[in-house]
This record gives sequence, C-alpha cells and structure tokens, in this order.
Amino acid sequence: MAVPEKRVQTRIDPYVDVYADRTKALKASAVRALFAVANRPEVVSLAGGMPNITDLPLDVVGSAVGDLIRRRGPQIMNYGTAQGEDRIREQICEVMALEGIEASPDDVIISCGSQQGLDLVTRTFINPGDVILAEAPSYVGALGTFASYQAHVVHVAMDDAGIIPEAFRAATVASRAAGRSVKFLYTIPNFNNPTGILLTMERRRELLAVAKELGVIIVEDNPYGLLGIDQPPVPAIRSLDADQVIYLGSFSKTFAPGFRVGWVLAPPAVLKKLVLAQESATLCPPVFSQFAISEYLATWDWKHQIDLFRAMYRERRDAMLRGLEDHMPEGATWTHPKGGFFVWMTLPEGFDSDQLMGRATSHRVAYVPGTAFYADGLGSRNMRLSFCFPTPERIYEGTRRLGEALTEEIELRATFGLVDPSLAAAVHPAVEP
Amino acid sequence: MAVPEKRVQTRIDPYVDVYADRTKALKASAVRALFAVANRPEVVSLAGGMPNITDLPLDVVGSAVGDLIRRRGPQIMNYGTAQGEDRIREQICEVMALEGIEASPDDVIISCGSQQGLDLVTRTFINPGDVILAEAPSYVGALGTFASYQAHVVHVAMDDAGIIPEAFRAATVASRAAGRSVKFLYTIPNFNNPTGILLTMERRRELLAVAKELGVIIVEDNPYGLLGIDQPPVPAIRSLDADQVIYLGSFSKTFAPGFRVGWVLAPPAVLKKLVLAQESATLCPPVFSQFAISEYLATWDWKHQIDLFRAMYRERRDAMLRGLEDHMPEGATWTHPKGGFFVWMTLPEGFDSDQLMGRATSHRVAYVPGTAFYADGLGSRNMRLSFCFPTPERIYEGTRRLGEALTEEIELRATFGLVDPSLAAAVHPAVEP
Repeated sequence: MAVPEKRVQTRIDPYVDVYADRTKALKASAVRALFAVANRPEVVSLAGGMPNITDLPLDVVGSAVGDLIRRRGPQIMNYGTAQGEDRIREQICEVMALEGIEASPDDVIISCGSQQGLDLVTRTFINPGDVILAEAPSYVGALGTFASYQAHVVHVAMDDAGIIPEAFRAATVASRAAGRSVKFLYTIPNFNNPTGILLTMERRRELLAVAKELGVIIVEDNPYGLLGIDQPPVPAIRSLDADQVIYLGSFSKTFAPGFRVGWVLAPPAVLKKLVLAQESATLCPPVFSQFAISEYLATWDWKHQIDLFRAMYRERRDAMLRGLEDHMPEGATWTHPKGGFFVWMTLPEGFDSDQLMGRATSHRVAYVPGTAFYADGLGSRNMRLSFCFPTPERIYEGTRRLGEALTEEIELRATFGLVDPSLAAAVHPAVEP
Repeated sequence: MAVPEKRVQTRIDPYVDVYADRTKALKASAVRALFAVANRPEVVSLAGGMPNITDLPLDVVGSAVGDLIRRRGPQIMNYGTAQGEDRIREQICEVMALEGIEASPDDVIISCGSQQGLDLVTRTFINPGDVILAEAPSYVGALGTFASYQAHVVHVAMDDAGIIPEAFRAATVASRAAGRSVKFLYTIPNFNNPTGILLTMERRRELLAVAKELGVIIVEDNPYGLLGIDQPPVPAIRSLDADQVIYLGSFSKTFAPGFRVGWVLAPPAVLKKLVLAQESATLCPPVFSQFAISEYLATWDWKHQIDLFRAMYRERRDAMLRGLEDHMPEGATWTHPKGGFFVWMTLPEGFDSDQLMGRATSHRVAYVPGTAFYADGLGSRNMRLSFCFPTPERIYEGTRRLGEALTEEIELRATFGLVDPSLAAAVHPAVEP
C-alpha cells in the first residue's frame, strides 16, 4: 500500500487492499441514507424505530442519577466486570420473570445495547459461510450484524401466527444437504420487527420441538415483549427450555435506549464464551449506565411505567390503523399488530416500495422499504410503518400523505395502462351517468 | 448437536462443535483470575490498571448530569448516531490539539471505551493469519482483541527510547518474506502499558518514515498521553502524519472509565468502514455517556483537573520508585516512567514471575506477571507494577512486601544452590568476624 501524499488528488481509497474480507459485506445501509430525509421537520417519519420516552419521570431519573454520582461516583464511574454488575443482573432476572423465564443472574451478561449482544452471539458461533436461519422478513440491524461475520442467511417463511415450524425444518434440512453448517435460528417472536406479528404459543412449542430434534439453537430476540397492547405478555420461548435458547433482552424500549444496556441469557458454557468475547470487545459494557438503570428500577414503579408506555403506544397504533383504513387505496393490505412498534404493509401487485420513495418524499412522508428486511432481495412490495415516535395526529396525517402518494402512483400507472384496471377504477372511479 | 436433557449430568460443553473457530483463541485470561486475589482488602494490589478518580468534582458532575436529564432527557437518553454525537467529537479535537493533532470532527468516531475502538479497527483490517506487529511487551487487552480475530502477532523489540524502528522494518520484511500480510503496527507510544516507556520524538519520526516507506499503518493507542508527570505532552505520531496513522483516544484516564467513551481518529476512507462496523456492532455507542462527558468538558476546568491527576500520580510513582529502591534485592531492575500508570520490573536471571505469584500472595501483594504482555510466551522474568490506584503509603508497603517475597525466594534458591551465589550473598551476607 503506497498511501498518496495528497489524498485530495485522488478519490480512490488508498487502503482498499488492506481491509479484511468481512468489510466487503458491509454496505452503507439504505435505511441510514433514508433517515437524513426522514428527520426533516416537515416530513412525517413513519420510518424510525425510536421509542417515545417523553413520558419518563425525568425529574426522578435526574435526581437519582445525580445523587448516585455524588454518593458513589468513584465506584460507578470506574471500570466494571466484563459480565456486568451483579445487581442489575439480578434485576434483569425479575424483568424476565414477567415472561415466565426462570434464570440465574450468573447466566446473564450485559451488552452495549442488545445489538452488541447479538454481535457477541454471532461472533461466538459464526464462521464465514455458516448458515443463520432468519424469519422472512427480519430486523435490518440483525441482518447487518450477520453480514459482518459473513454468515449465509437463509430466510424462513412466516404467516400471521409467526415463523412456520415446518419451513424451519425444511430450511435446516436443505442447508445441511447443501453441506452447510446451520448455527442458529434468529427470531423476534413478540411483535416482530418489521411485521408486528406475534408468534403464537402453540407455534413456540412446535418451533422448540423442531429445534431440539434438529439440534439447532434458537436465538430469541425480545425487545418488545413487555409492550403488548391488547394482552398480557406471552411466555418467552426461553421459558420453555433453558438449553436450546439464547435470549436477548433490552432496556431500550421499556426504559431508554441511550444508556445502551441490553443483555444475553445463555446456557453456562455459551455464557463463558460470551464473557471472553465481551472482554476483548469492550473490556466491560457501560458501567455507569448499569448503575443508573439499577437505581431507576429500584426507586421507581417501572412496571406501572411500562403500562403507561403501553397505553401511549396503543393510541398511536390505533391512529395508524385508523389512518390506513381511511386512506389506503384498495389492493394494499397490512398487519394489525397487538403490540410493539410496527405495521407491515403490502402494496398492490406490481408496485415497488423502493420506487415509491421519491413520490412519498414529495408528499412529506417517510417509511422503510421492505427490501431492507431481507437478505435475498425480496420485500419490494412491502414497507415498514412505525407508530412509535410521532404523535397520533402526525401518524394519522402520515397515513393520509402516504395514501395520496400511492393513489397518485396508481393513477399515473393507470394512465399508462400499467396496472390492473380494477385497481385504477377503485381509486379513480369511472364517472357514472 | 444433541443437547443433553439434564446438563448437570455432564461436564462436557454440549455446544463445543458449534462455536466459531475464532473462539479457540480466546482463553480466560490469567489476569482476570488474578484480580480475584488482588481485590481482597488485605492484599496490596499493584496489579490493576484502574485510575484513581476520587479527586473528580463529584458534586459538579452529579449536578450537571442530573440537570442534563431533567432538561434534555428525551434526546440524550434516546438513540444516537453510529459515529457519535457532533459536540463531543468537536471537543475531542480540542483535547487532541494538546498533543499537536489537527483533526476534523468528521474524522472521529466514538467507541464504547477505546478497547472497542481497537476491536473495530482490528475487525476492519484483520483476516485470520494476518500479521499485527506489536511492541514487545504490549498491552494485554490488545493482545486479547488481536487473538479474537485470529491475527498472527509478531513482537517488535523496544528499548528505553521505545519501539526500535529497525526492528519494525526487520519484522515487516521477515513477515512478508514468509508470505504473510502485515496489516499494522500497534504501539502505545506514551508511557507504554506495561513498561511505562515514552517513545522519543526522534524515534516517532523514524518510525513514521519506515511505516511510510513500507506502507504499514501505525495504530497509535494513547490513553496516557496527557498524564505525563515530569514534562508537557510529546506531540502524537498522528500530529506528524494524517494518512499513515490511526489514532485511539480515551476519556478513561483523564476523566472516568465507567462512561465507556473512547474514540478513533482515522483517514476518511477508513473512518467510513469503522462507522459501518460500529453500526453492526452496537447501532450507536453510549449516547447518554457522550452527553455527560460533553457537559463535564464544557462546565469544568478539565485541563486543571488533569493537572491535579498528574500531581496525584507523581506522588504515587515516586512512592513506588522509592519503595523499589529501598526494598528490592540486588539483581532486580525496573523502568523509571515519566508518566502513565506502570513500572516494568525485571527479576534477576533464573527467576520467574509466574512462579513467584504464590509467594507474593502469601505476602499479601499482587502484580501482573510479564508473560501476560507477550503473545509468544516471553516475559517470564518480568512483572507489571501499577502505581495508579492504591495510596502512596500502600504502594510503598506493597513494594516492601514484594521485596520480602523476592528475598525469601532468593534465599530458598540459594539453600538449594539454585542461584548465582553473589545474589544470595547480597541478600543474605555471610557473617563476617
């Protein structure tokens, strides 16, 4: 590598031959580029997954954290352990108990957000070319992590009841027949990102039975489990089996993401590997953050706070579903989530959510195109619509704008004879005498 | 993988065939086991590298952070960007200017402690088997990260003036002749961990010239640069060249480690890769921590605070050097650091710091054996002694205990005729008439 003396003279990356192979799989995500648009104030963003945390008791948190520094600063602002602090790991076991999980704090490791937990798990299991089975569609951030370890992602079909156990079996068998090593199944069973779908209890049992039979670990990613809107939490897959499941949890949606505290609950042998990986990755996860969250959990009625969040998100979800009902042209369909942050829309046949982006932007509304949630290029007729962050009024207005954009597109295509005439008729009815 | 139903019945790891190859390089570090002993209150620990942060203005920090939450909670406790927040990246440029670095905030990325910065850099450059050149000895945590990416570490000799440029050249040429790809040279030029040695200005220029000639990136890890005891900071290697150097910085020693905020300053093309890697590793580094540190830097005379730290560490360093002078038997030698946290001791020929551990423990003193700082098994005659955390009195007492342990060992060996008689005579003089 000869680094040019004046790098302004060239646009070529002088380090291009020096990077590791794994960097080739990393691309600037379309999602990130999108957020530059979505964050403009005149745009209604149905794109982001940021929780609305304005309802947190800021006075209480501010005082608790301030006091903590004054009383115990030299301890809570110093290095901690790679596994994370004892007290918060105990509290996390109480949080997980709400979803039926019995666990020891010894089997929990803290991560820098649950994204980093997923990174540690992937690092621990994946050689380049190994198969990760993932729901179709899957969380875009997980697909990014899997790509960074050069995993081969094989999608597994889901329906309204969640991931389909027989599809899981078939994908495993086919991958093995092709000579590949299948390392784990990745799923967000509760209010899946991006579809909002809840994996039914029956399916959880079936999925676990297949996993045990085939010897495939299930990685259960559960950021939204306590944010059910219409019902109490469903027992976690991990509550049914301690050996076959690696569980990822997070405070990002039930408290606040900025502290970057997530966790992994894993069988003891796996946990040891994760602790070693954490040691080399960060020395220790954010220490101060762990003490701050511990203090919040100990001094505030956090369960009631979650109930307040659920009520707040219910109103937003309802605004979105009402808005879609009122404004979407015929032919579009969408999920009706019972919790979480997201609705998954399917456009009429022949429409493409990537292509629709420009028109949506000029109508001042943003979403995430469905292709972001597939490793294999599918999803072009889909989009993810978030109801977590804007106010109910803005959400409703966002669906109105989206409806306009889509209707316009249908009309345009109808003009050129590009769509099913029945669709065009539906949005733009022929004048009857 | 057939996971046993009752894992208590077996001690065999049921997942052993499923882990990634890279996990084989990860071992529970001897250093971690050691800390269980070192942290017992009756033991004087000269082992740890924890900064003493009791002198921080806890009232000021507590109030500032509490206010920040009350005033701006919903923003500072939410998700941030993968590159890190704008304001702290600007402030970091001011910090780096103290060591002669001119940099744009655009070229800085925040990491979860500078350990995670090193992880991101290693991830971006290292394929399994690639060579990383590293000072002999090198920071134990860096060696752990390098091992986790299956790097082949080749040590480069240092002397009292730091890493030897001709040894760097020779190691690069030999590695390339052996068909290996040399990715970067890793160095802690200021008060090296574990030796305390400062790379001279002349050497910095020579090292850089060799690096440019051979086309090898220098990774400059600089946690201690502002903690010089006897002199103002030496210009960073990065201050001499912006293309050849990737610079790692940290607030862990100049402010507090528990917030887990470090950074990487890299050429623009490399920075883009690091941002992508950060996105898949953590989504974003600790957001709240970044705002907390920004606020501290903006509201407090942090340069004066660093001067207070320097004076505090001077007293501790002096206590250690005085103690070693007073208590070490003849034949032991050690470095005389002008800053940082560490003294590097060399035992008399034939002695082994790993073997001495048991005796040192029974004398209630702990250190880190030298072998921890080499990837190739060297360092058995060395130990790292930290003067950062215990009080000067305890440090002095620690050296007394260490002197006792070593003297006892020498006497024992003399009894069995295992050491140079002149050494034994020095500690246990023959009775003269």
